[in-house]
Amino acid sequence: MSRVKVAILGGSGYTAVELMKILLRHPHAEIAAVTSRQDEHVADLHPGLLGRLDIRCQPFDAASLKAMGVQVAFGCLPHSTSMESIPPLLERGIRVVDLSADYRLRDARVYQEWYKEPHHDTANLGHAVYGLPEVYGDRITAARLVANPGCYPQTAILGLAPLVANGLIELESIVIDSKSGVSGAGRTPKLTTHFPECNESVSAYGIGSHRHTPEIEQALSDIARRPVSVIFTPHLIPMDRGILSTIYAVPVKPVAEPELYELYRSYFAGKPFVRVRNTPPATKDTAHTNFLDVCVKLVRGRVLVVAAEDNLVRGASGVAVQNFNRMFGFDERTGLL
Amino acid sequence: MSRVKVAILGGSGYTAVELMKILLRHPHAEIAAVTSRQDEHVADLHPGLLGRLDIRCQPFDAASLKAMGVQVAFGCLPHSTSMESIPPLLERGIRVVDLSADYRLRDARVYQEWYKEPHHDTANLGHAVYGLPEVYGDRITAARLVANPGCYPQTAILGLAPLVANGLIELESIVIDSKSGVSGAGRTPKLTTHFPECNESVSAYGIGSHRHTPEIEQALSDIARRPVSVIFTPHLIPMDRGILSTIYAVPVKPVAEPELYELYRSYFAGKPFVRVRNTPPATKDTAHTNFLDVCVKLVRGRVLVVAAEDNLVRGASGVAVQNFNRMFGFDERTGLL
Amino acid sequence: MSRVKVAILGGSGYTAVELMKILLRHPHAEIAAVTSRQDEHVADLHPGLLGRLDIRCQPFDAASLKAMGVQVAFGCLPHSTSMESIPPLLERGIRVVDLSADYRLRDARVYQEWYKEPHHDTANLGHAVYGLPEVYGDRITAARLVANPGCYPQTAILGLAPLVANGLIELESIVIDSKSGVSGAGRTPKLTTHFPECNESVSAYGIGSHRHTPEIEQALSDIARRPVSVIFTPHLIPMDRGILSTIYAVPVKPVAEPELYELYRSYFAGKPFVRVRNTPPATKDTAHTNFLDVCVKLVRGRVLVVAAEDNLVRGASGVAVQNFNRMFGFDERTGLL
Amino acid sequence: MSRVKVAILGGSGYTAVELMKILLRHPHAEIAAVTSRQDEHVADLHPGLLGRLDIRCQPFDAASLKAMGVQVAFGCLPHSTSMESIPPLLERGIRVVDLSADYRLRDARVYQEWYKEPHHDTANLGHAVYGLPEVYGDRITAARLVANPGCYPQTAILGLAPLVANGLIELESIVIDSKSGVSGAGRTPKLTTHFPECNESVSAYGIGSHRHTPEIEQALSDIARRPVSVIFTPHLIPMDRGILSTIYAVPVKPVAEPELYELYRSYFAGKPFVRVRNTPPATKDTAHTNFLDVCVKLVRGRVLVVAAEDNLVRGASGVAVQNFNRMFGFDERTGLL
Repeated sequence: MSRVKVAILGGSGYTAVELMKILLRHPHAEIAAVTSRQDEHVADLHPGLLGRLDIRCQPFDAASLKAMGVQVAFGCLPHSTSMESIPPLLERGIRVVDLSADYRLRDARVYQEWYKEPHHDTANLGHAVYGLPEVYGDRITAARLVANPGCYPQTAILGLAPLVANGLIELESIVIDSKSGVSGAGRTPKLTTHFPECNESVSAYGIGSHRHTPEIEQALSDIARRPVSVIFTPHLIPMDRGILSTIYAVPVKPVAEPELYELYRSYFAGKPFVRVRNTPPATKDTAHTNFLDVCVKLVRGRVLVVAAEDNLVRGASGVAVQNFNRMFGFDERTGLL
Repeated sequence: MSRVKVAILGGSGYTAVELMKILLRHPHAEIAAVTSRQDEHVADLHPGLLGRLDIRCQPFDAASLKAMGVQVAFGCLPHSTSMESIPPLLERGIRVVDLSADYRLRDARVYQEWYKEPHHDTANLGHAVYGLPEVYGDRITAARLVANPGCYPQTAILGLAPLVANGLIELESIVIDSKSGVSGAGRTPKLTTHFPECNESVSAYGIGSHRHTPEIEQALSDIARRPVSVIFTPHLIPMDRGILSTIYAVPVKPVAEPELYELYRSYFAGKPFVRVRNTPPATKDTAHTNFLDVCVKLVRGRVLVVAAEDNLVRGASGVAVQNFNRMFGFDERTGLL
Repeated sequence: MSRVKVAILGGSGYTAVELMKILLRHPHAEIAAVTSRQDEHVADLHPGLLGRLDIRCQPFDAASLKAMGVQVAFGCLPHSTSMESIPPLLERGIRVVDLSADYRLRDARVYQEWYKEPHHDTANLGHAVYGLPEVYGDRITAARLVANPGCYPQTAILGLAPLVANGLIELESIVIDSKSGVSGAGRTPKLTTHFPECNESVSAYGIGSHRHTPEIEQALSDIARRPVSVIFTPHLIPMDRGILSTIYAVPVKPVAEPELYELYRSYFAGKPFVRVRNTPPATKDTAHTNFLDVCVKLVRGRVLVVAAEDNLVRGASGVAVQNFNRMFGFDERTGLL
Repeated sequence: MSRVKVAILGGSGYTAVELMKILLRHPHAEIAAVTSRQDEHVADLHPGLLGRLDIRCQPFDAASLKAMGVQVAFGCLPHSTSMESIPPLLERGIRVVDLSADYRLRDARVYQEWYKEPHHDTANLGHAVYGLPEVYGDRITAARLVANPGCYPQTAILGLAPLVANGLIELESIVIDSKSGVSGAGRTPKLTTHFPECNESVSAYGIGSHRHTPEIEQALSDIARRPVSVIFTPHLIPMDRGILSTIYAVPVKPVAEPELYELYRSYFAGKPFVRVRNTPPATKDTAHTNFLDVCVKLVRGRVLVVAAEDNLVRGASGVAVQNFNRMFGFDERTGLL
């Protein structure tokens, strides 16, 4: 079978290099182009790729990518930059999996509220599909533009989906306390991610203002068919990768722990990348994999969910490939196990 | 001024070595004895003490300690062992600051419920004072036996005290999500604290069953003058030391963030080791100090408190010295700043 | 093509789980059995394998493995235990890649000198092949028993091979200063690998007595065709995985840095897993891969080599699969890129 | 006794904050001023100082410092900036302990060779004293300008001093392989010190070109009374603080290990901050102290020294206070134990 020609937009960051590593193992994908403002060989940007991917970054140009036969582009650009590059690709029939936040929020006003700038591509916003396969799987298959989900939101949405779908919890009671490794903050050096500042330390950040909040609420509201509002608090943890979300909610009526476990098993049956466990997961169990591990407990009448994932694989580049697989008719697991 | 002769019981662990380091700088204390079943020089157990403390561990014997002129003993023994060593000391008029959990819970039945064994020294339990100076300060001064508080509970109790004392929150709504460095698990090697297991990973443990739960509830109930029940979830974080607790509660009526901040400033006025901040603290800000940093926020109508401390200093050996200072009439800050 | 049936002996440690992860991706291998004294499902020993490998550990029994059709066994047992399990497998025609040290040293007296116990299987020692493919590649193909090389020795041997093979350095001048992540110490908890002991710390260990010394000397002597003696100092570094060796040697005559670089390029031409670089490698560049990165420099007339690898992949389980590929006629890279 | 008024120049970095923490505990020093281009309260730059040091940074002005009664300034500025600020202080009779590299190399040509820019204050270079108390102690007492030693050089110089002073090793055979925590690279964020880049990784840097090389050689040549040239290779290790140097040298004649140990004990007798040990030190044993631990071994006829220190305390701010103590007639240990 001939391979699908793939382009990666914005090749210098962590999601890009993770994506390249996954695609290098994918039997049906070929990395045809990597774009970047940095005019360098990818192995100079990412020494781990030395001898594995012999390609030089090129400036972004939609027409060139089309001429090369690129069928799909993975956007690894920062938000707001991303929505400038994607329209010319879609116009040329190149499908897109965008890892930025630009097409995740259906309502452009919500985007403006949280990202503090107007949305410039509402036309494509209209048909973008939120790329969480376990929830929006059917719509991803035919999508031209997939808005790959955020790292934190996946743990929150999938951690709560069985409860919310079945109307088991008070929708105004949800507290999501998340802990993330530092790679989630990107590859641009800043004081907060300078090793001697964040090593040997834990802190909360973005209290009440983190941009993943509306994304979590949009998906949970879809599942609940009612508005959902959450308290979401991210924390920075001294490790490279991994997200653990501990989620608290008040049940609408008494429920037993074994019931909850069965509910989760049943909800995620046939979803190969969600592992329902009866012991609390460590992020390390999911490291370098596309698995999202989830465990549900009952504590003093409160429901407590723990969800773990690798923020760069499941939280970004792995689920992007899972979406790619669906879009191009491959088994969802291809290249990911 | 002559120095107070001090004994340390159980010299091989992390709280013991931290205590020795603090006491070596204390102008009014002299480490007269260190007891241990390990017949070794303290500097062989703790190489950092080489050239600083020339003392050999001795087997525990209350009469010998008395004969040496020991006036106070710091108990760094495991729970249940501790309550066997302490009675003979008290009988001989040696005052005790016990860092174990044995005398923290006033009700022996609650002890048995959470520690799964009966309490063997209910006589002394009756007069033990819970050693959280910011709450029980007056009673500590005259105490013969101080039950030094647990590491997690201090962040939870002090983080919530202003709210609970003023009746501002729904007492059944409290969620405490805590993150701790690995030294909190002690110095005995086990798989969960083996470096390649817990490094680069985060996990929740003791969900719904951690023994610090009743201790938190006892103190908060004292402050509230009503029973308080909490959801407490500890997590293991890949760092040596530090605890961060993120606490969520529902206010009983609408409240503004500046009011909360002033409430905290006022509640902790004159308490030299609690720093009320308007930005969320990182555990690193408190590392190797006896400070507990606290920040209160309002998020979508919910109260959110972040409290940080060093689990070995503020969470154990530092507060033990703070208690010692109160017991022997020294300024609370002596040796700690 | 039918898959080669593989057994893993001693399934509870880090090299075993790494091997399973690699073999799960290998198109021509099937994990038929995992042995352990622990009667558990592999996913209970290694939660990361949940949903990926549905197999229960079984007690070691050579006859059973033969009956199951096992063609090759990977030994992940401790040294001295390994040489008890391997003879019955060889007798039954099962080929073996042994990751322990038991068959690495050709001279049983040298084994006894460094491992402080006699060798019990000198019969098989006679035909064992040292499994470093870049040096002993031809002999591995037909080997019945491959002694998989140690983690440190690979960086030292391959780092020095081009110099030693060409007689460019004084053979008594070699100093190898190595730094290893903690997984190299195995999975059994002990004080030295307890997180709060080894985190935030670096130390040398096994000074002048580390058991990898004779292994390094044996291979370098083979390459030099003269006895080689080295100074080898390993260090423990607070990270999960990775080895960096910094190697110093005195050249026999003046030499220029570009010549050395070309020598290395030429020596390793056609060796897909050795990457000769002109900038010093970080262990992270090789993490989770089978690459060994090497860089040679000239400093004030002294030759300085830096070699980096992942101690669990290249240093153990990856090279074991590379050996397996050679033994069974697959491309050396299969399952490893 | 009235306290010596102290100024700290360049208050935003790691050596400055470490210095403030030490001086806050010093009974005879008072932090009168902190200078910085950043017009902020020191507790905003360093949240750990909240409630401990109520001082706002001021722009550097020698006349103002003089007017405030400042008697000594600690320079925590970058090299080349430092030598612009120091002359006006010396002119006004303010003594200086300079933590930068500007006055460490006596020969301005050597400075230019390694720092790639000319020296602008050769007048003061002439009388500056290299502030390594164990070697240049007598001259420090009366010095107006002390050039505080580099972090790496102290481990190398003190590690080798007993051997070099007694003519026991071949002076051209010295190899110094050093490992440092990340705080040694300063507080300015860059890619190499961005957490996800340097965490879980080890690498060599500055091979053959690190600027501490001539500093090591100058001091060792002083001690040897003959030119000494060394091979020095620093490595970056994923930890906050600590330096371990492993040093290799060829003895001029056969020597026994016990003799070496006695030589070191004798050489460092009466030096309170050097601990000669018979087991190899871990950097953690010295963390947050002014101790330098050293251990000497004989390996296959080669001398091997391991020296450990805290790079921010002993390697910078602690030894600066040790120098201050000597300059102002206090016991060398004041504020440091």
